[in-house]
Amino acid sequence: MPSQNKWKNWQAACTLDFYLCAMTKVILKKKIAQRIANGHPWIFANEVDRVEGGAPEPGAIVDVYYHDNKFCGRGYSNPKSQILVRLLTRKKEDINEQFFYNRILQAWQYRQRTGYTENCRLVFGEADDMPALIIDKFNDYFVIQTLALGIDNWKPAIMNALEKIFKPKGIYERNDVPVRELEGLPQQKGFLSAPFSPEIVINENGLKFHVDIENGQKTGYFLDQQDNRRAIQHIVKGADVLGAFTYTGTFEIHAAHYGAKSVLGLDISENAVNQANRNARLNNLDHICHFEAVNAFDVLKQWTKDGRQYDVVMLDPPAFTKSRENIQKAITGYKEINLRGMKLVKNGGFLVTSSCTNLVQPELFLQTIDMAAKDARKRIRQVTFQAQASDHPIIWGMDNTNYLKFLIVEVCDR
Amino acid sequence: MPSQNKWKNWQAACTLDFYLCAMTKVILKKKIAQRIANGHPWIFANEVDRVEGGAPEPGAIVDVYYHDNKFCGRGYSNPKSQILVRLLTRKKEDINEQFFYNRILQAWQYRQRTGYTENCRLVFGEADDMPALIIDKFNDYFVIQTLALGIDNWKPAIMNALEKIFKPKGIYERNDVPVRELEGLPQQKGFLSAPFSPEIVINENGLKFHVDIENGQKTGYFLDQQDNRRAIQHIVKGADVLGAFTYTGTFEIHAAHYGAKSVLGLDISENAVNQANRNARLNNLDHICHFEAVNAFDVLKQWTKDGRQYDVVMLDPPAFTKSRENIQKAITGYKEINLRGMKLVKNGGFLVTSSCTNLVQPELFLQTIDMAAKDARKRIRQVTFQAQASDHPIIWGMDNTNYLKFLIVEVCDR
Repeated sequence: MPSQNKWKNWQAACTLDFYLCAMTKVILKKKIAQRIANGHPWIFANEVDRVEGGAPEPGAIVDVYYHDNKFCGRGYSNPKSQILVRLLTRKKEDINEQFFYNRILQAWQYRQRTGYTENCRLVFGEADDMPALIIDKFNDYFVIQTLALGIDNWKPAIMNALEKIFKPKGIYERNDVPVRELEGLPQQKGFLSAPFSPEIVINENGLKFHVDIENGQKTGYFLDQQDNRRAIQHIVKGADVLGAFTYTGTFEIHAAHYGAKSVLGLDISENAVNQANRNARLNNLDHICHFEAVNAFDVLKQWTKDGRQYDVVMLDPPAFTKSRENIQKAITGYKEINLRGMKLVKNGGFLVTSSCTNLVQPELFLQTIDMAAKDARKRIRQVTFQAQASDHPIIWGMDNTNYLKFLIVEVCDR
Repeated sequence: MPSQNKWKNWQAACTLDFYLCAMTKVILKKKIAQRIANGHPWIFANEVDRVEGGAPEPGAIVDVYYHDNKFCGRGYSNPKSQILVRLLTRKKEDINEQFFYNRILQAWQYRQRTGYTENCRLVFGEADDMPALIIDKFNDYFVIQTLALGIDNWKPAIMNALEKIFKPKGIYERNDVPVRELEGLPQQKGFLSAPFSPEIVINENGLKFHVDIENGQKTGYFLDQQDNRRAIQHIVKGADVLGAFTYTGTFEIHAAHYGAKSVLGLDISENAVNQANRNARLNNLDHICHFEAVNAFDVLKQWTKDGRQYDVVMLDPPAFTKSRENIQKAITGYKEINLRGMKLVKNGGFLVTSSCTNLVQPELFLQTIDMAAKDARKRIRQVTFQAQASDHPIIWGMDNTNYLKFLIVEVCDR
């Protein structure tokens, strides 16, 4: 890792007493304590009975107590955020550089033990007891997001931990996300290490993919589907495959790799289609995979009218909504696109469909697909139903950790 | 296939008009029609408004109509059973030998397209539109169960279909199950083809297993966990593994194959332990795998007291209940054994746990494990949650097709 001066400054910052002392006491209301006692790390402002020891500095570490003065945990606070405190620990332990080193090391050990070593979500926020922190590992490169002020303050400690554990070739910050503004943080992106070429190549399931960690969506690549992409292995053999919302073409290139006869991927973005084409060429599969920049909603409707049919249709649409108020809109979107997708599947073929928003929980997603099947006058059988890969572990009771639904159904005429 | 005379007799039987004409009309009550319209194939006696055209012969094919005289479907009936009719089709098509040939061929095509060719559940009853019929394929050998009179009548047609499609080396009937008595059928087992050695060897995930299709549980082997056994691949590397309810040792031998340091499997049955030991030897893994004939409930409790600890604990218990009245008993059993299992897991290790009864549906199973974790004072993270392998497809709304829960959680001290 170059740029040693930067590191030294961070290390100095981490020793500041400011981060170490937890003076402020936040005392919870009685009635909401159960959710938090059961493990949920978020404390909303309206769940707090009172604050003792003075208003905390924005981002500062505070102690949280139950109504009966029993210690609850320690976390970082931000009076500007709806979530007043996010707990980092249930123990009276110091929150310091060593704390983050230990947590990140633990996170890495979990990925190693579950078989996610080359590329993985190294830190999955709340599920790794580091709320609002995302770190994706792409072989020797790391992309981080610090989505709350209280974790943003610890960026130096986090960088030091990565340096010690991995000796990275590069670290990039993808904090260009609107949610940071709710925390009073600026949107920003850039190198946290010495600059490097932000277009890297990763291996996944025996294939290679370009990852644009500077300008790609989110951290540059969707690692969460890495196991699900293998799940199409058998059904695409010798098949004509259509993929919508193809983005960087990963599902489509997997389909070609697993023996599809033809693969057509659709995305509304020219950039995505260019990236998908590059990825197809990178794997010498551009004679099988073709990509078109079109609006999938429109095209799928038209092609149904035209009587087009595919052995396998794959849908991996965006979230459709980011707010709880718009869940109905998301459901309408999922239902409509899946209905159109099903109509394009040959009798006895397969629909491969995903949903990536935690606002539509698994049961509701399945109900939506069921409704789509009824409206499309199709009979469906569940082949497999999975969540995100295990490097994104799920904590029960924290819906935001249970966000990806991946479903394969066989589609038959009624 | 030898024993040609048997075949000829069956073929003759299948052409009898008796099977071909659907004289009796069963008319449904108005209010229950929705469930059946939505695809459920079971019609209970108390859901029938009236029967026209005379009481059907037990096992005979009947036509079912909605209250408004709209055609609903065609199926077999049994006045002796609580389920008066099980629908075979929603079309006015002949139920004859060709019908079963087509259905079994379709079932085989689905398994081929989803990658289950060497060993598979070839026919999964209701999920393959052949209610009460189970056929397991173990390479060139087939084990069948006909669990209702109306499907038992069609055994000759089913045998002929298997013969045409597969040219089997052998077919065995495992109808030694009490549920047949509810249908007025005898419990029986034996060769349906010329006799062969009923102890066969199958390949699964690069390993070999003895399958005793004559005396093993159910059809002789649990194919439904074949994909789930691969899911332990990473977590068992270098681990000390304990498996309870090991039966034929398949999970344990997989653990050894995937690099476990030591594996101990427990089963209350001496026979099971002998079979597990044979399987370990068959794979040259008997230096890693050891098996003991003990009661897992007792032993796990004692070993917790003794302070034993394992990196991975695997539980694959029996159903604990077969009746809806005893669900609470099953839940108590699952909770207790999982609580004991978790206590034996080292901090940061893994619990691998299954439940095979459809009476405890997935959500309830997860709740039970959650309760066990709270009582054991453990924090758990979901690594993966799966159902049975895709050769046992799931039909939404038919709970009996959604029966296997397979869960891996990381277990940490609170």
